[in-house]
Amino acid sequence: MFVLDSRLERDTIFIGDLDLCTVRLMNDARYPWVILIPKRADICEIYQLTLAEQEQLQRESCFIAQQLAQLVSADKMNVAALGNIVKQLHVHHVARFKSDEAWPNPVWGKGAAVPYSAEEAETVIEQLKVKLASF
Amino acid sequence: MFVLDSRLERDTIFIGDLDLCTVRLMNDARYPWVILIPKRADICEIYQLTLAEQEQLQRESCFIAQQLAQLVSADKMNVAALGNIVKQLHVHHVARFKSDEAWPNPVWGKGAAVPYSAEEAETVIEQLKVKLASF
Repeated sequence: MFVLDSRLERDTIFIGDLDLCTVRLMNDARYPWVILIPKRADICEIYQLTLAEQEQLQRESCFIAQQLAQLVSADKMNVAALGNIVKQLHVHHVARFKSDEAWPNPVWGKGAAVPYSAEEAETVIEQLKVKLASF
Repeated sequence: MFVLDSRLERDTIFIGDLDLCTVRLMNDARYPWVILIPKRADICEIYQLTLAEQEQLQRESCFIAQQLAQLVSADKMNVAALGNIVKQLHVHHVARFKSDEAWPNPVWGKGAAVPYSAEEAETVIEQLKVKLASF
């Protein structure tokens, strides 16, 4: 049975569900950052999914990347499955700007997350829910 | 027309070609690290590929990740499309070990690459060519 990793649960906020993945917002206002987590138990690598699931993940990932890029006018999307700390397969989609504090380096492990205010989080999540509904 | 980015050309060594991607070894002996570059002009994001190409990229990416993980007995694969510095779409496949110098952080922008000796490079590339032939 799929159970969301406790660290992902703590660090992210639920947005919605797609067919394969549950979609969550990283609670870090420094970067527009959406994480897809395939709702499959005990999977750590993309290649451990079935071929059909791999294709579905690609569709959902491309959809999220494109929608987020358009929503915030990103300079670049960073899409990555790392998992060195949280083993449960999860795919980062980080909207990057030439003006952001980590550019051009990756965002992981750089500085401390800046949590959204309740109002900010609500606004961002509402925008992303509208996008999800169009998948 | 597809032309390989000059920095990718300089930093990596040709291994072979799959249907969509050209496959290259990062010339950094610290990490077993294979880069897939879709042979398509002017593409910076995975979602800019056609749907069929997105699926093909996923197949080739999963194949490379699994083969490399098995070849070197990786603790984790890091698979990422970043492109903050080199815009041309390229997907990193980095075999990670709990004992490597960057663990558990990502490898990008950490220290200087350690180029392979000619002999080491030949050995690694020969192993990977055998794997590619089984795709």
